[in-house]
Amino acid sequence: MDLAVRTLAIAPDLAALARALFEELRTSSHDGVGITRETYAAGETQAMRRIEAIARAAGLGCAWDAAANLRVTLPGTDPALPAASCGSHLDSVPQGGNYDGAAGVIAGLLALLHAARETRRARSLTLFVMRGEESAWYGRPYLGSSALFGVFDPAWLDLPNLRDPSLTLGEAMRREGADTAPIAARTPLIDPASLSHYVELHIEQGPVMVARKVPVGLVSGIRGNHRHPNARATGEAAHSGAVPRWLRRDAVLGAADFAMRLDGTWRTLLERGEDLVMTFGIFTTDPREHAMTRVPGEVRFTLEWRSESEATLDAFGDLARTEAAEIARERGVRIELGPGVRTPPAAMDKRLLALSHRICRDAAMPHEVVASGAGHDAAIFANAGVPSAMVFVRNEHGSHNPHEAMDMDDFLAAAAVLREVLLNGADVLT
Amino acid sequence: MDLAVRTLAIAPDLAALARALFEELRTSSHDGVGITRETYAAGETQAMRRIEAIARAAGLGCAWDAAANLRVTLPGTDPALPAASCGSHLDSVPQGGNYDGAAGVIAGLLALLHAARETRRARSLTLFVMRGEESAWYGRPYLGSSALFGVFDPAWLDLPNLRDPSLTLGEAMRREGADTAPIAARTPLIDPASLSHYVELHIEQGPVMVARKVPVGLVSGIRGNHRHPNARATGEAAHSGAVPRWLRRDAVLGAADFAMRLDGTWRTLLERGEDLVMTFGIFTTDPREHAMTRVPGEVRFTLEWRSESEATLDAFGDLARTEAAEIARERGVRIELGPGVRTPPAAMDKRLLALSHRICRDAAMPHEVVASGAGHDAAIFANAGVPSAMVFVRNEHGSHNPHEAMDMDDFLAAAAVLREVLLNGADVLT
Repeated sequence: MDLAVRTLAIAPDLAALARALFEELRTSSHDGVGITRETYAAGETQAMRRIEAIARAAGLGCAWDAAANLRVTLPGTDPALPAASCGSHLDSVPQGGNYDGAAGVIAGLLALLHAARETRRARSLTLFVMRGEESAWYGRPYLGSSALFGVFDPAWLDLPNLRDPSLTLGEAMRREGADTAPIAARTPLIDPASLSHYVELHIEQGPVMVARKVPVGLVSGIRGNHRHPNARATGEAAHSGAVPRWLRRDAVLGAADFAMRLDGTWRTLLERGEDLVMTFGIFTTDPREHAMTRVPGEVRFTLEWRSESEATLDAFGDLARTEAAEIARERGVRIELGPGVRTPPAAMDKRLLALSHRICRDAAMPHEVVASGAGHDAAIFANAGVPSAMVFVRNEHGSHNPHEAMDMDDFLAAAAVLREVLLNGADVLT
Repeated sequence: MDLAVRTLAIAPDLAALARALFEELRTSSHDGVGITRETYAAGETQAMRRIEAIARAAGLGCAWDAAANLRVTLPGTDPALPAASCGSHLDSVPQGGNYDGAAGVIAGLLALLHAARETRRARSLTLFVMRGEESAWYGRPYLGSSALFGVFDPAWLDLPNLRDPSLTLGEAMRREGADTAPIAARTPLIDPASLSHYVELHIEQGPVMVARKVPVGLVSGIRGNHRHPNARATGEAAHSGAVPRWLRRDAVLGAADFAMRLDGTWRTLLERGEDLVMTFGIFTTDPREHAMTRVPGEVRFTLEWRSESEATLDAFGDLARTEAAEIARERGVRIELGPGVRTPPAAMDKRLLALSHRICRDAAMPHEVVASGAGHDAAIFANAGVPSAMVFVRNEHGSHNPHEAMDMDDFLAAAAVLREVLLNGADVLT
């Protein structure tokens, strides 16, 4: 047991380096309110160059690809072997937090620095420091990882910068050193078969691990989603005093009935062990005509549901449409979901998950299996066919805000798990 | 049976007069879109003077009171007997319909003209043509009838005209011939004991009679209401993907749950024979912070419920607060109704209702007992202690809009019922 616990230790000088790097990033990216590291711009590039400098000083190989992603490599003795890889991003949202993205990059750097001190391995190790995962200034996320695998839509090159519409994404990329020609041609920058696996550390963006009191989370999958931004319940406006219940077609009651039926369906699916979250984020009577003394004729709402399972996503949509039809019959209120947008889920590799579980268990590290509700670069790797895993770090107050709060001991524990999955993952995949 | 049916006939010349009067009013009050007869202004006064002219020509007595209401009287042989009374109003909302108010005044006029042709009765008959029942330009309804019984709040005299804020209600009243001094002193303009009873004809403002296919409605009572214009459900905003169900405090689901529980309570109370309507007229997430991918932290809504029964109004409020407490426990969402406004219900006299029922039954007139969801001058009479009744006329498309659609045959049937209740009501009240 002592031996096992020791394997999850981080060398004191590497722990000190991590602390110093987080502080340095915080200082250099502070915007007065939170942290801002702009996508394909100075904030992101400056942070990437800092990682490059440390890696080079430690003798690691550094290269910039056509999407201006940074690849840090510890070469193995057998270049023919697929490389074990890890990574994350360094851009942030405006006025965001210091850990979303950066924690994964620093954890990967620690893993390579640790391995560089050991006997040289047969397999190369690669850290991908990726561009534009948040992409808050362009609205289309996972830019760097999409380019890696040739799934970057060339149309994105024309996306305007939301703060400065005269600047396109393509131009911003070129300014930071990208060569957009192969990207426009959808040429993959890497062969998925050249990677044995990919593992990414990230702060948890939800409250589960704080609630469960576990520092380390092992991600079972990255939820896909179905989104309906323009859903509507249509009844009939009427006098609130003079129309009895049996003659009403009340849009608020129709929509509330729909929400409650879906809430019941959600509960049932959770009890069956399915992964699912569901949100009516916007839900509003029509401000142009609603009034206290008027039976509401219309409610507009958004509906989003997410699951790790494509089958659950589809099943929930079918159940929603069935409930909508019943409400039309029972209440005379028409529920229309309107056009939908789908993002497929990304399964994490079960063998890597089992390995992560074993690593934690052997080290008596409290942990929990959690679903990732938000998207990550790891989903792009997984959907490109690279067996992938994610390790979450406990974090308070969610992400994308200045109040992200990750304890350094939790980070070091999760970084050690990441390291072990990076170093040993290929062994469980054969 | 023949005799009974004959008693609900309206003389052909009086029916023709009614048709002509409605047409004349429509022409003189047409605003290009609908009907506008402004409260305490030219539109209302002109219509009242037309009624006065016809009444005077037929030898009826006419007098204007301190609130500039018109009283038309057919004197009886015994001035000591309390007068049988009827009435309604002649103002409209802007771009309203031709029948809301005017139908009751014209029906009353027909009743007095009919009685004037018969043997002189012991009991005087009075038609009240009242001011400012809608009061759309001042926001406080039932002005004329409130003044009659000394329940006109003197503060209303300072209410600004909503279209011309330099004009106060008091000034507008004086311009139309009112003497506001006794009104400011809350001096009743009439002794409730001087009236045996009051009956008012009005178009139905809801769809019940059209749905039930009955031309005549007998009003059981005028609903009071409890109103909560600033109710709120407060949960906690969160990431829509990363927060599982058990850690959510979703304000939309909390508020929808509340609406569904109250809908169930409503259904239960209806099944027990209680009178109740309930409306969430405004129901909205916060536009400053809602988003498709955010668990909603707040819903603001209005809640109004109406009933003929004070006990039901109170019981429903108690049940609502009980459900709110359960939602707080079960969902962590706080439901607060906020400050409420109460308007008491007005019971219609059961003996007059029974008489109306007998009149219809004996004449084989299809009818139905209905609650009035909207307020009427009759509520002011009833709450002043005058035994009161209301007769509704079938009407399509509700009221307060240019599409009010009352069939003239329906009107004449209901006007005959009104006349019989006016002439015979006192006999059932001793």
